[in-house]
Amino acid sequence: MSAIKVAILGFGTVGEGVYRTIQSHSEELTAVLGKKVEVAAVLIKNKQKERAINEDVLVTTDFSEILELPQLDIVVEAIVDKEPTFTFLKKAIERGCHIITANKEMFAHHGKELFELAEENHVSVGFEATVAGGIPVIQTLRQLLKINRVQQVQGILNGTSNFILTEMRVKKQSFAESLLSAQVNGYAEADPTNDVEGYDAFYKTMILSRIAFGEEPNWQDVEREGITSITIKLIEAAEKIGLRFKHIASLSRAGGQIKASVKPVLVGSEHPFYHVEGVENAVNVFSDIVGRITLQGPGAGMYPTASAVIEDLVYVCQSKPAKSSVTPSPTAISEPENPQGKETWLVYGLAKKQLNTSILWIEQVSEGTFIIQATKKDVEQLVRQQNAQGYYPIVGEYDVEMKDEVVTAL
Amino acid sequence: MSAIKVAILGFGTVGEGVYRTIQSHSEELTAVLGKKVEVAAVLIKNKQKERAINEDVLVTTDFSEILELPQLDIVVEAIVDKEPTFTFLKKAIERGCHIITANKEMFAHHGKELFELAEENHVSVGFEATVAGGIPVIQTLRQLLKINRVQQVQGILNGTSNFILTEMRVKKQSFAESLLSAQVNGYAEADPTNDVEGYDAFYKTMILSRIAFGEEPNWQDVEREGITSITIKLIEAAEKIGLRFKHIASLSRAGGQIKASVKPVLVGSEHPFYHVEGVENAVNVFSDIVGRITLQGPGAGMYPTASAVIEDLVYVCQSKPAKSSVTPSPTAISEPENPQGKETWLVYGLAKKQLNTSILWIEQVSEGTFIIQATKKDVEQLVRQQNAQGYYPIVGEYDVEMKDEVVTAL
Repeated sequence: MSAIKVAILGFGTVGEGVYRTIQSHSEELTAVLGKKVEVAAVLIKNKQKERAINEDVLVTTDFSEILELPQLDIVVEAIVDKEPTFTFLKKAIERGCHIITANKEMFAHHGKELFELAEENHVSVGFEATVAGGIPVIQTLRQLLKINRVQQVQGILNGTSNFILTEMRVKKQSFAESLLSAQVNGYAEADPTNDVEGYDAFYKTMILSRIAFGEEPNWQDVEREGITSITIKLIEAAEKIGLRFKHIASLSRAGGQIKASVKPVLVGSEHPFYHVEGVENAVNVFSDIVGRITLQGPGAGMYPTASAVIEDLVYVCQSKPAKSSVTPSPTAISEPENPQGKETWLVYGLAKKQLNTSILWIEQVSEGTFIIQATKKDVEQLVRQQNAQGYYPIVGEYDVEMKDEVVTAL
Repeated sequence: MSAIKVAILGFGTVGEGVYRTIQSHSEELTAVLGKKVEVAAVLIKNKQKERAINEDVLVTTDFSEILELPQLDIVVEAIVDKEPTFTFLKKAIERGCHIITANKEMFAHHGKELFELAEENHVSVGFEATVAGGIPVIQTLRQLLKINRVQQVQGILNGTSNFILTEMRVKKQSFAESLLSAQVNGYAEADPTNDVEGYDAFYKTMILSRIAFGEEPNWQDVEREGITSITIKLIEAAEKIGLRFKHIASLSRAGGQIKASVKPVLVGSEHPFYHVEGVENAVNVFSDIVGRITLQGPGAGMYPTASAVIEDLVYVCQSKPAKSSVTPSPTAISEPENPQGKETWLVYGLAKKQLNTSILWIEQVSEGTFIIQATKKDVEQLVRQQNAQGYYPIVGEYDVEMKDEVVTAL
């Protein structure tokens, strides 16, 4: 019985998790694939470091040595950065290997090229691990998309940001203290920019867009905001009225146009993301037949991410080399928008309540902090005119439930 | 281009939803299957009733007319009761048709025989619609099980019971009033026994067990309890201490033995099911690599269930005729049990607090209602000796968080 030979690029958390899982679940892999899966090589950065890798595995810092192996079927990439990973994967595809990646930044930038190259070379591309770690969101979307027309996708896609927001609220800690605690727990990098400024979630959103809608919005048109502007004072004001800050990626399509944003949003307790706490991720898909489905689970970590890679390993071995993954229906339509385009907002740092008939003042939360209903244009104008500190959208039931009761009281 | 010919047995909510979806999503089905899907026949009960069915479809009360159609590829069964549905499906398989069922009672009883017969006849069996409506739980388990070893599955599988419990708590209504409201809303049958006594959830649990563990526990050994014993007074007592009643199906395997129960359980706000409200369903899978994943969505209704059937339609057309669906790892192990076997319980209708060193009295919730920690045997003995009204298990964080604080206060 021949074996399936795998190279793992990178031996950090994800790479090591993949290596260990291939060892510990070798029986299951053989059962499902009919062949043994063997790690033939591991690409590392630093030859000095001690690693628990079997002696018969080629451990090298030189990718060309891996490419020259007599047999190589799958290359698993678990490094970071766009380069040299993109170049490595192109070479792997050209050699006839299936590729599997956990690298969202690289994949958001070069996924399309990799798919095209893979098609030419009759190999497959696995990328389940790029979005939401162990939650099988890519496979579930693929499954749904066979017949359903997806209209909206929302997600908590960055565990670090969600952990920090949870810590700030629960422990009444500052952003800086909570970031430190994320770093101590291994949930945040020394340089946390990618996570807390929303870049990580942005890349994942673009990958989801390609799956859900077959295309991406213009990257420049996507609102991307991190969590660094959120203070403990704001979190407390929101909590007082039953709302929580969540960093939410949102995708929808209307009239052939994809709308996407990645930003802090206030949600009420009926929203499926209100209770997603700590490093958990969640994805919520609204499609025309099935309605709304939510998936929740570990968004990162050694084994959850390894599980996604191993599922891809089975997928690339079993599937026919795919075209750009799925071809979603071009007729997908979006949920009806709010007809007047008015949304509910929390505005803070306002000097005073301003008379403006196009703004509905719903509630004063605390000194200078108000809940209003207005169009995006109007809230931006208000903030500019009054030199206010900022504003956040509120989604969910808050507006609907509260409006009638409180409007008259103001 | 030839077509795929489908017969739908039953034209109730599910049958009609499948019929309509095949019409409305005909383009998508053709795109994914390479052939047009056509409804060739519908089996009905009452010929007098008006139905929106195309003229070229055979509408009949006689199943043998359907079997005699010149071409028939798939039989979708959306009736209720074990018979004559089981007989119909056996005949359909023997004629060489793939079958798809939404009938949990029939499938829990006869799934194994249908699988064996399907294998002999080289056709496939789809049953995604039997459990949790539109939530793709069967496919997700299949996907996870390729490599993961599933250890525990929990679910809110009966939307009717969950709706009634939600109504009772939110509207402070009696069981009878809430049942009526479920009936008025079309969420409960005129005879609600199957739902409120836990039979429906029990059948679904047995189907999940076969998928997750490849086998079922002895049906007689499964604790099955409905929600009829839960009063508004108990719900209020639980709410006072942050707990909610949920009707939970639970499956786990330890030492080769499958443990299953279907019963009301008290959960705290950190439990993933605490916020699953109304007719929603949720399933929570704990497996060794990926950890805990929760899926939540519409558990019933015309289109969600139709979506599950249509997914099966694609599945049976694309997959090779499967053996009994999946062969899960025989080595699956369970999460470590509580070493002393002690669990936390809410006991009600107690005359007095009894001195018994094997019971840890945690909190008095109201007159005669206590939270205790004890083995199942001890709580049963206590209830028997004191002629108490009943007891419910509490799962989640309650015991861990509260214990230290309150024990000393009692």
